[in-house]
Amino acid sequence: MATGPNGSRPEPLFLRACRGEETEATPIWLMRQAGRYLPEYRALRERVGFLDLCRRSDLAAQVTVDAARRLGVDAAIVFADLLLVLEPLGLEVEFGPIEGPIIRNPLREGADVERLREMDAPSTLRAVYETVRLSRAALPAGVPLIGFCGAPFTVGAYAIEGRGSRDFAQAKAFIYRDPGAWHALAAHLVRGLTDYLNAQIDAGAHAVQVFDSWVGCLGPADYRSFVLPHTRALIRGLRPGVPVIHFGTGNPALVAGMAEAGGEVVGLDHRSDLAGVRARLGARAVQGNLDPAVLLADRPAVIERATGVLEANGGRPGHVFNLGHGVLPETPVDNVLALVDHVRAWRPAR
Amino acid sequence: MATGPNGSRPEPLFLRACRGEETEATPIWLMRQAGRYLPEYRALRERVGFLDLCRRSDLAAQVTVDAARRLGVDAAIVFADLLLVLEPLGLEVEFGPIEGPIIRNPLREGADVERLREMDAPSTLRAVYETVRLSRAALPAGVPLIGFCGAPFTVGAYAIEGRGSRDFAQAKAFIYRDPGAWHALAAHLVRGLTDYLNAQIDAGAHAVQVFDSWVGCLGPADYRSFVLPHTRALIRGLRPGVPVIHFGTGNPALVAGMAEAGGEVVGLDHRSDLAGVRARLGARAVQGNLDPAVLLADRPAVIERATGVLEANGGRPGHVFNLGHGVLPETPVDNVLALVDHVRAWRPAR
Repeated sequence: MATGPNGSRPEPLFLRACRGEETEATPIWLMRQAGRYLPEYRALRERVGFLDLCRRSDLAAQVTVDAARRLGVDAAIVFADLLLVLEPLGLEVEFGPIEGPIIRNPLREGADVERLREMDAPSTLRAVYETVRLSRAALPAGVPLIGFCGAPFTVGAYAIEGRGSRDFAQAKAFIYRDPGAWHALAAHLVRGLTDYLNAQIDAGAHAVQVFDSWVGCLGPADYRSFVLPHTRALIRGLRPGVPVIHFGTGNPALVAGMAEAGGEVVGLDHRSDLAGVRARLGARAVQGNLDPAVLLADRPAVIERATGVLEANGGRPGHVFNLGHGVLPETPVDNVLALVDHVRAWRPAR
Repeated sequence: MATGPNGSRPEPLFLRACRGEETEATPIWLMRQAGRYLPEYRALRERVGFLDLCRRSDLAAQVTVDAARRLGVDAAIVFADLLLVLEPLGLEVEFGPIEGPIIRNPLREGADVERLREMDAPSTLRAVYETVRLSRAALPAGVPLIGFCGAPFTVGAYAIEGRGSRDFAQAKAFIYRDPGAWHALAAHLVRGLTDYLNAQIDAGAHAVQVFDSWVGCLGPADYRSFVLPHTRALIRGLRPGVPVIHFGTGNPALVAGMAEAGGEVVGLDHRSDLAGVRARLGARAVQGNLDPAVLLADRPAVIERATGVLEANGGRPGHVFNLGHGVLPETPVDNVLALVDHVRAWRPAR
């Protein structure tokens, strides 16, 4: 068993699984585990707006740590938003209550890329690093902290589209029309995002997750042309020794390309066949992939379906249990607690 | 070359490609080819509401035929809506201008399934068959007419969710909570949808497409448990001799299961790797799969990308060119015309 820096305390379960090591149990954390399904989070949000919460490091750290404690999960993820990086680029963002962030001056043509500012993440996004520091200090021993950012495609597509979208058609049309401008934009984002994640690592993040939340609107050939080189550059630019989870959603046909782009752990959504992916990716660690909608059903369904995911992994080392996407707002907390208990207690049949 | 019923005129290109035969060119039609991107359609819709248009067979047939003539495509598809079948089931539907149809009394628990009426499609959906008859009579010789319906999952998920959704979480929670009620619902829908498609065939449709537009929210194991048997029952219940296109969108990991469920032609969206699918499915005909967002770019991009799809197919027989999803409303008509010309003229390198 691996040991921590002091040579005695074992490394946390989550980090060992990220490194593909055999573990005595399957670690679990949940995307959006500190979100709207928690009554204490909703109560806080009645007093504090979303963006203010991201910027108030004391409150953001409290949300981060309280959720991890309450659920008893194996990792915490810093409370922040994928799209905090837009404003430092010179994009004017409004965080609406329902439709999500809206950009008043989205990128609409190639020339717009040239007017972007450098992100200068080390100074513009200090509140996030402070949240990392405060969270790390407050977390129980053995519960590592995950930092995160959006992948270059996801951030770039949003900067073009200007709002959430089912198909990101404007973003794709931009890419098809002016591939050179797209590559310039992606390279610009990679510079900023690399600094941003490294600053989170310097502040104390034990692992980082790169979210390619919108990439599933592309096919595999476009992924290879327009996304893979940039995500790879981002991941290669990160401090060594810190596990990287590379998560994408919406298209299982991209998993091979995502694995190639990098990351110790490939994060799968619920559309993927976990057993098939593990067979194809060999020893690579994976994260996932219970459908978040299962948590809207009842406890027996949660147990049965979670068992299905664990059995699909079949006891292979290097499995971090998670949902295929974030916890849904309508999720009963008791179902989440039942899931965490079940996964922690489960052992493969011998 | 195959010949028509009179033994002299060759069968239309589209039907021969659906049957997997070698053809002298690649046939093309486009999902939503008679839609909002056409100025004449928008002009008509200023006078006539969407639902009224579906029910006015003379106008619906005009829209069907005019679009096929204007574009010079190889097939027409009857103008109608996937969700016309909801009202005959006893669901109260409002077709909103932006958010799409909203069901005032969606199915929320197992017991709700029992209150559904039989669809009785032969009498409740007569306007559609009349549109089929009028369209077929008015179409140029050699341009076959496609009838269609939603697949049982897509119609059932909408009946539960009550509106469009990014993830159909309510529908999935229903399925996970009460699989028996879901199977009863799907079987109920299969009865009605089979009658509905057969009545379209009896009225003159030369081919039919089954749209599983929302199925991509599921993973492959759920597809096999909750969808495949019902779609298979629907397809097996159809009049023999009429090609069935089985289209799904949103998850390439479902393509193997969809192919197993049936249909002479498997319809792919743009997330799939066409070359890989053809290699895996053997001689099975396929339809697809240009990203509709390409048509928002410029003409050189359209030509380059369409060539990419044709080359991915690599001259294999049994390819019907189409988009991966419907034509987007913002699409310039000239780009669509350039696409159709290019595909019709393209020949594989020898």
